[in-house]
Amino acid sequence: MNTEENQLLTRTGPGTAMGEVFRRFWLPILLAEELPAPDCAPVRVKVLGEELIAFRDTDGRIGLLDRFCAHRHTDLFFGRNEECGLRCVYHGWKYDVDGNCVDQPSEPPEFVFKDDIKLTSYPCRERGGLIWTYMGPADLEPELPELEWARVPPAHRYLRKYIVDCNYLQAMEGDIDSTHVPFLHSYLGEQAQRRLRRLQGGSSRLYTEQGLPKWYKISVKDTDYGLMFGFYRQTEDENIDWHITHWLMPAYTLIAGGTPGQTLRCNTRAPIDDENFAFFRVQWNPERPLTAEEIAEYEQGTSFEEVIPGTFLPKRNKENDWLIDRELQKSWNFTGIRSIPEQDQAITISMGPILDRTKEHLGSSDTAIHALRRKLLQAARGVLEGTDPYAAYHGDAYRVRQLDIVLKKDIPWDEGSREQIKATA
Amino acid sequence: MNTEENQLLTRTGPGTAMGEVFRRFWLPILLAEELPAPDCAPVRVKVLGEELIAFRDTDGRIGLLDRFCAHRHTDLFFGRNEECGLRCVYHGWKYDVDGNCVDQPSEPPEFVFKDDIKLTSYPCRERGGLIWTYMGPADLEPELPELEWARVPPAHRYLRKYIVDCNYLQAMEGDIDSTHVPFLHSYLGEQAQRRLRRLQGGSSRLYTEQGLPKWYKISVKDTDYGLMFGFYRQTEDENIDWHITHWLMPAYTLIAGGTPGQTLRCNTRAPIDDENFAFFRVQWNPERPLTAEEIAEYEQGTSFEEVIPGTFLPKRNKENDWLIDRELQKSWNFTGIRSIPEQDQAITISMGPILDRTKEHLGSSDTAIHALRRKLLQAARGVLEGTDPYAAYHGDAYRVRQLDIVLKKDIPWDEGSREQIKATA
Amino acid sequence: MNTEENQLLTRTGPGTAMGEVFRRFWLPILLAEELPAPDCAPVRVKVLGEELIAFRDTDGRIGLLDRFCAHRHTDLFFGRNEECGLRCVYHGWKYDVDGNCVDQPSEPPEFVFKDDIKLTSYPCRERGGLIWTYMGPADLEPELPELEWARVPPAHRYLRKYIVDCNYLQAMEGDIDSTHVPFLHSYLGEQAQRRLRRLQGGSSRLYTEQGLPKWYKISVKDTDYGLMFGFYRQTEDENIDWHITHWLMPAYTLIAGGTPGQTLRCNTRAPIDDENFAFFRVQWNPERPLTAEEIAEYEQGTSFEEVIPGTFLPKRNKENDWLIDRELQKSWNFTGIRSIPEQDQAITISMGPILDRTKEHLGSSDTAIHALRRKLLQAARGVLEGTDPYAAYHGDAYRVRQLDIVLKKDIPWDEGSREQIKATA
Repeated sequence: MNTEENQLLTRTGPGTAMGEVFRRFWLPILLAEELPAPDCAPVRVKVLGEELIAFRDTDGRIGLLDRFCAHRHTDLFFGRNEECGLRCVYHGWKYDVDGNCVDQPSEPPEFVFKDDIKLTSYPCRERGGLIWTYMGPADLEPELPELEWARVPPAHRYLRKYIVDCNYLQAMEGDIDSTHVPFLHSYLGEQAQRRLRRLQGGSSRLYTEQGLPKWYKISVKDTDYGLMFGFYRQTEDENIDWHITHWLMPAYTLIAGGTPGQTLRCNTRAPIDDENFAFFRVQWNPERPLTAEEIAEYEQGTSFEEVIPGTFLPKRNKENDWLIDRELQKSWNFTGIRSIPEQDQAITISMGPILDRTKEHLGSSDTAIHALRRKLLQAARGVLEGTDPYAAYHGDAYRVRQLDIVLKKDIPWDEGSREQIKATA
Repeated sequence: MNTEENQLLTRTGPGTAMGEVFRRFWLPILLAEELPAPDCAPVRVKVLGEELIAFRDTDGRIGLLDRFCAHRHTDLFFGRNEECGLRCVYHGWKYDVDGNCVDQPSEPPEFVFKDDIKLTSYPCRERGGLIWTYMGPADLEPELPELEWARVPPAHRYLRKYIVDCNYLQAMEGDIDSTHVPFLHSYLGEQAQRRLRRLQGGSSRLYTEQGLPKWYKISVKDTDYGLMFGFYRQTEDENIDWHITHWLMPAYTLIAGGTPGQTLRCNTRAPIDDENFAFFRVQWNPERPLTAEEIAEYEQGTSFEEVIPGTFLPKRNKENDWLIDRELQKSWNFTGIRSIPEQDQAITISMGPILDRTKEHLGSSDTAIHALRRKLLQAARGVLEGTDPYAAYHGDAYRVRQLDIVLKKDIPWDEGSREQIKATA
Repeated sequence: MNTEENQLLTRTGPGTAMGEVFRRFWLPILLAEELPAPDCAPVRVKVLGEELIAFRDTDGRIGLLDRFCAHRHTDLFFGRNEECGLRCVYHGWKYDVDGNCVDQPSEPPEFVFKDDIKLTSYPCRERGGLIWTYMGPADLEPELPELEWARVPPAHRYLRKYIVDCNYLQAMEGDIDSTHVPFLHSYLGEQAQRRLRRLQGGSSRLYTEQGLPKWYKISVKDTDYGLMFGFYRQTEDENIDWHITHWLMPAYTLIAGGTPGQTLRCNTRAPIDDENFAFFRVQWNPERPLTAEEIAEYEQGTSFEEVIPGTFLPKRNKENDWLIDRELQKSWNFTGIRSIPEQDQAITISMGPILDRTKEHLGSSDTAIHALRRKLLQAARGVLEGTDPYAAYHGDAYRVRQLDIVLKKDIPWDEGSREQIKATA
């Protein structure tokens, strides 16, 4: 990986190739509850390096506009959200959800020029508890991705937002890097192993006794939605134990650890700028509402890390070294850091705001990461040449699930898993 | 407005054109009380991007010098203010108010070279509760501006200092932009309107019922001191209602809202650097001492916003979004921000540290702003060509006042206001 | 001094000339107690601009490695220090104290490539309560400096570490600048003078009555270890009163104020980067353990300034103007700053992160500073031409002490002091 490729992968601002890839998809940007009601307070949002303001108008429509009034470049955050538009408080110019200037009361009637004024605006949709936007050319508007968690009834889903202070890619790479799991997330000692198995349910098979790893091999398959990864290992009875993870363009992961009936997980990301991303962590059950026990576990701060009240910023963070506890690192778990998401973020953010991939030394266990980068570079170069991603225009391509499955060794993994990775909701 | 013009207007450091304009005038830099007594503690001051140290010597003279000792470039803030000079504590070099090195005790008598050492120094004057300096060429020293508030007895005047974190110009433009008043500073509902009229006295005419604006037209007149702005509107009986605001070079405004006998207001600014300015807010009554009621109102934190104790920094500021209250924005006033000066600063600072004027779309209601920029650009280009501003050398040109007046419609506004805009103190 | 020379003197990162000078010596980087035991927590260290991680392995050996894992560039601070190596928690790669990758458990045996992986590592030594490293070419490894304080038994020594936020050189210049002592560190009034004499013991001779200085002349002698400075003055009986200070390459000072039997002081520095340095302040007595009274004095916060608990950062610092007390500056001491080390740091840091020496005006009293700069420039240019410093390869050259002595006026100072400046421990 050279410096030019690393920049191509990690830069998403206006005019960048990867920025154009992201600008071919609907992107999740806010929790729906951040705009809870008509005429509620507007919210500042930064997406792909662009400073925007989001609001929900009197009729419930969502607007996402350039953050600054066209008149004197004042922050529309201070604006009044009233009567189907956001009105700048400086001189009263008012904009509708499409960015049209619909009132210009500071001008005498004979001088009004509101028809010449339009703010950049991006269409928004609400689905699955999130607000999504599309920031690309109007004539290339894609389909919404038909992610299963976004289609189940709300009671089947648990969802939280975080702001994470590093480039989106190094975090996303962690999701498809199953190799790190038996290290970064492992526990020490027999008691800890038991506790882990209980907490993780079926997926504890990924963890090994005594923290000693057993290697998985990696298969990768190109798909309509992105990539499908098979992490596999021979079982004692000579079958193959498969863990199937999906990466869906541009920035979703469905991480292995799913058996039929189980509650599943999706990591969803959108770059804020090149050194920060919005992170939506989702749990959902395709078949039933989440149980009180499940929700209690999500609320207690390990599956979903705690935030500084009133913010989306983790309490354990770079400034306090994730409150690493060196005693616990000796006696309890591999890192001395409390929870799995915090372990992931500690290590991912420790790479620097934008990982310099020219300094790495990848091995065979990094096959999935290598494949992801190749696919993203391909997409970036494709968009530069006018080839738009297939997935953007085929929302139904997203109807997949992760899967843990044991297959006879002569059955190809994609065939053997075909039915069970289909989303049903 | 192009980028080059915007830079010309907003950059005031050494060597810039607008910096040279400011360097043709006496500039207010400190409250007199910041140097309360002979031999008091020296005070760091930054003006027009230059790092300086101010002190009051044993004889009460004020010095304003390069902040760093000529010997080893140490901060003279730590210096001893003693026996008619500021002495560096490192090796005892001592400077008088003119920047002369008057003692060099670290050198044996035969090696003393103090006569070769002189710090940059700027002359200072004390007037109207402020300390003023002149930072231009010695042979071009201007006259002090004969501002009325600086000439009345102290009991006629109330004065506060703030440090504001944006370029001086976008704030100053707000002062002469009367168009924003019925929006940014308006109240909602009949009760609020009544309260406002009581608080503002005569100037409540600028506000309109129900927050609906009625347009003023704008006349601009070039004057010896800068610009005179007439904001006018026909009255029901076909006379003309004039609100006269002055801008006085380089950075004073006398804002409409003045009838004979009334206590008046002046906003006074000097750039600290291009992203901060010192703001002196003044109220004065030409004819009588301020009343206890007036002072009580200024002390209660709305006419003059509250500061973080021990600083000149507003409590409500960019970091806390001026404590905007969205409930109050629905029910009480246009912004949900507590006071008029905080409303002004919220919106002005929201434009960014230096407003990018290439992004604006000005209308007919921005005539005053347009005129101000043209006049400033003219002054900047003039100074580059060797033409110094007339006002700098005619302190008596500053003897004017703002005025609210109704004139017969056939009387020209400048003639009809001529006597009443004369300052008398 | 021109800009190029100033940069040559002050830049110490990889590839700089002065950086190469520092890279010819063992450098003190940590208190030994920062790595208190085998397998203790690793510690982040920045030296000469390089980001490193230090750890003490199971066998007690100290490692100093590139801070980031060769695999995915993750911070080894989060690593596990276990079984003779530091293991990255992401995928378990493990490094020994020499930077060799000794385990790569994320790779299946057939793909292991650990023998191709080596982190930058620097050898470490423990001596005198400190950990030292050598960051230069392996074939030029120097001898450890045989500083007396590093060779006495621990009970003879008192040692503290600080992190100071300015370039190393301007602070080091202060140590050999005896001219500042009767100014910066002086007390006011007769009572204060008495107190000072009691506190300082023999060295009070450097201070003068009433804060009036009496000039010393300066002799400089080039030595094997660096420079020897003689600050001298005729006594009333026509002998010569000598204060002998040493500067030892690259960054030690033994400051005048030593008579036989007295407890002595050494200032020891190593650049963290060009705007910060690690400062180890040492007191030692060659002949006896320090007394309880001496230690009590060091603990009470004036000889050794107080730090913010859990850090090496002084409580009184740039952010709070060293809590200067203007009343005390009038009545008690020259600065109004509490202690001698704080006075030194206030003034040294006030010069800016890197003093711009082109702005100075040096005099005859700056002879020592001038000599130090010349010697450092010589060393920097020498290293560029392949001439390595003599002192680096002659640890025994460091066996010297500071001295205060009165000599007959016809005895040369270096001869008259020869025996008494020899270290004995």
